[in-house]
Amino acid sequence: MTLKSATPDFIDSLRAVLPDAAFREAAPRYFEEPRGRWQGQGVIVAPGDAEGVAQVVRACAGARVPIVPYGGGTGLVGGQIAPDGPVPVILSLERMRAVRGLWPGENVVVVEAGAILQDIHEAAEAAGRLFPLSIAAKGSARIGGLLGTNAGGVNVLRYGNARDLCLGLEAVLPDGRIWHGLKRLRKDNTGYDLRNLLIGSEGTLGVITAAALKLAPRPAGEGTALMAVAGARAALDLLAMARDHMGEGISAFEIIHRQGLDFLAETLPDIRQPFAEPPEWCVLIDVGLARGLDPAAALETLFAEGFEAGLVHDGMVAQSQAQRHAFWEVREQIPEANRRIGSVSSHDISLPLSVIPEFIARGTGVIAGIGDFRVNCFGHLGDGNLHYNVFPMPGRTRADHVAERDAIKRAVHDLVHEMGGSVSAEHGIGRLKVGDLERYGDPVKLDAMRAIKAALDPVGIMNPGAVLRAGG
Amino acid sequence: MTLKSATPDFIDSLRAVLPDAAFREAAPRYFEEPRGRWQGQGVIVAPGDAEGVAQVVRACAGARVPIVPYGGGTGLVGGQIAPDGPVPVILSLERMRAVRGLWPGENVVVVEAGAILQDIHEAAEAAGRLFPLSIAAKGSARIGGLLGTNAGGVNVLRYGNARDLCLGLEAVLPDGRIWHGLKRLRKDNTGYDLRNLLIGSEGTLGVITAAALKLAPRPAGEGTALMAVAGARAALDLLAMARDHMGEGISAFEIIHRQGLDFLAETLPDIRQPFAEPPEWCVLIDVGLARGLDPAAALETLFAEGFEAGLVHDGMVAQSQAQRHAFWEVREQIPEANRRIGSVSSHDISLPLSVIPEFIARGTGVIAGIGDFRVNCFGHLGDGNLHYNVFPMPGRTRADHVAERDAIKRAVHDLVHEMGGSVSAEHGIGRLKVGDLERYGDPVKLDAMRAIKAALDPVGIMNPGAVLRAGG
Repeated sequence: MTLKSATPDFIDSLRAVLPDAAFREAAPRYFEEPRGRWQGQGVIVAPGDAEGVAQVVRACAGARVPIVPYGGGTGLVGGQIAPDGPVPVILSLERMRAVRGLWPGENVVVVEAGAILQDIHEAAEAAGRLFPLSIAAKGSARIGGLLGTNAGGVNVLRYGNARDLCLGLEAVLPDGRIWHGLKRLRKDNTGYDLRNLLIGSEGTLGVITAAALKLAPRPAGEGTALMAVAGARAALDLLAMARDHMGEGISAFEIIHRQGLDFLAETLPDIRQPFAEPPEWCVLIDVGLARGLDPAAALETLFAEGFEAGLVHDGMVAQSQAQRHAFWEVREQIPEANRRIGSVSSHDISLPLSVIPEFIARGTGVIAGIGDFRVNCFGHLGDGNLHYNVFPMPGRTRADHVAERDAIKRAVHDLVHEMGGSVSAEHGIGRLKVGDLERYGDPVKLDAMRAIKAALDPVGIMNPGAVLRAGG
Repeated sequence: MTLKSATPDFIDSLRAVLPDAAFREAAPRYFEEPRGRWQGQGVIVAPGDAEGVAQVVRACAGARVPIVPYGGGTGLVGGQIAPDGPVPVILSLERMRAVRGLWPGENVVVVEAGAILQDIHEAAEAAGRLFPLSIAAKGSARIGGLLGTNAGGVNVLRYGNARDLCLGLEAVLPDGRIWHGLKRLRKDNTGYDLRNLLIGSEGTLGVITAAALKLAPRPAGEGTALMAVAGARAALDLLAMARDHMGEGISAFEIIHRQGLDFLAETLPDIRQPFAEPPEWCVLIDVGLARGLDPAAALETLFAEGFEAGLVHDGMVAQSQAQRHAFWEVREQIPEANRRIGSVSSHDISLPLSVIPEFIARGTGVIAGIGDFRVNCFGHLGDGNLHYNVFPMPGRTRADHVAERDAIKRAVHDLVHEMGGSVSAEHGIGRLKVGDLERYGDPVKLDAMRAIKAALDPVGIMNPGAVLRAGG
């Protein structure tokens, strides 16, 4: 069924039912995305409540006008951008930012979809609790988009992905009706898991308008260490050792390659380098432990046993909050350093933990077979999630390698797929990886997805072209 | 579309493609369920591999013969029983019990759907790991059914429900094609969450044939305590205090009412009563802590601070494994004592934690308004999951109260629904609660469920009459 553009007449019909505040100027930020691959189009509509969202969806369904749900605009795969086709309504949740309720005794908060992640962090902290989802873009990412894309980040190892932190949803389905599913329950086996179906569907099955989220107790004490490891296999052995010591107390276990430290030194020289001589591989370990345990002492014990076992050869345990922040600053500024260098091809991949050392070894060979490049491999090792990014050699730029870009991406993704991994660990499919999903996705699952999409959104108005090919 | 019975001719056509071993005698156990409410019917077929399951499903789809997926037969809501309608194929997974692989370093095991939960526990333990899902029927429940119903149990507080422990699935969809989704990945954002859609769909959207499951590190030390509390509010405050002390270290937090202890004393007098004078309310706390912490000492500190705060007035911390088992025996035998007394109406409900004290108070009034009954309220308080079971007064039997049964169930469920709870916390809908789902379920969600069912199973062969009304 053919979709139609949001014409001035159509927008006028919306003006008749929504307040003026719902109509926003078409500022450039709505049409840009962080990596600059696409330029979007659309008419911005920002309802103030779920009923307003429902009115927009009903109107669009009636007129066959496409809708692109819009959160913080921080997505990296173009799910929030409509570069072509009929002009859509950009349905922004920015005016729906309320914390509807917070129950510290239940460890639950209910927030509207437009709430910014950092604000949720602060609301939880004010109640003596922790909302563990954390990503670099936390100052602008909104919870509706974080759930729509099932965001990951640095604390997945301990607390899970966005979907694992959601107890219930309120959402507008493609027919414009509101599903009131904001349950604050840990156990609820009453029918199909519509919540998890919407989470990660990237706005193609409905619009999340509010969510009931899990909070966690704040650990009694926290600690951070950087340890130089002999390689990826040693890093994994160290992770297993850390789990034997501290169980779920390990909040993050990040791997950093020397290439990342070198890029930092080159592009952001003000950031203090932690090691006098950058090791080939190091890990950043963050722990939050129960009362009666000293995180710094536990990390020192881990280092001593890891040293004894030949897994680590250098390292430092943060002795203050300032040091913890300094260690994390190194990890968190690596993406910025990468941006300044300019990657030829970036890959957000995951693998079964035990094959990661083999993947890294084979990946080196695969890239070398294509040309001379620098690889910065870093990320959430504890989750098997690597950011495997390929850069030009010194003196060259990404523009010099346009011709090799597709071949690199294909080769890396083919290898990941062959080894049982995923070509989109935490960023989603959006518009960038529709072809990858078709190539690597299980055909039976893809057909089931298409059947579900057709059943819930028969007109195809919800974010057409994201995840699944439009009209496909 | 009309379904047809599995005729002898149809079964002969299956015999042409499946080995003799796949055809099982129609033993009575396949047609009974634990609470004796229904008597089933069907022809038993037990394929030896996923391809065999796919052949059965394809044949049934072609001939419009219904399929009832069958695990351990321990479900409490009749999801595994077809009491009427066309004679189905009872598709038993009992021959598919293999552990396909176990990766201790990844904390992952891949098992076939017919694997018995206890066997998975033992495989994990042999590898120094823990598979945390645990229910009373662990000696006969099979993982396919546990996932199909999203089973809960005693460790949900710490480790989540069955769905939270599953990384990937292999399943046969209603068209007889196999979805190969056995990923061993912690992060994989490649399309809709078909895994969670199948989990908890109770065999109405497909047949799970294998699963990749999360394992956990075994806690360095474990401990158990029984504490008499002033009431449900005090129990919740004690839970919050315990979380402040031990974070995720609390594996189970069960509440027990004196009624349960009295029933135990009456029906199972050999079980040692923990308290000289049974308190009105007590909690059973199980903890598993990291290295460097003494679980018994931590529980004693919790008791001391709880006593100081007026939350607990009596209690004991297990000093040996034998004592831990004795404490758990009290909790685990309460359902058996209940069975011997004979309930008028049982309710597997969940509520937001903070309203539980009010629910218990109001529930007492609601039941008293119907007649004189004894209420045994116990369960997984940490998850907000209560088993709220209503019994006759001494000298009377459940048969004396047939007339009040529906009124009690309705009144309890109405109250739960009004207070934001669920009328099926962990058992599912099956055939028992189809009417409850229609009454209390969100109508928009129900329509979405029907649309998904029609999209994935247009002929309606998969477990017709479970979850959704057949042909509805």
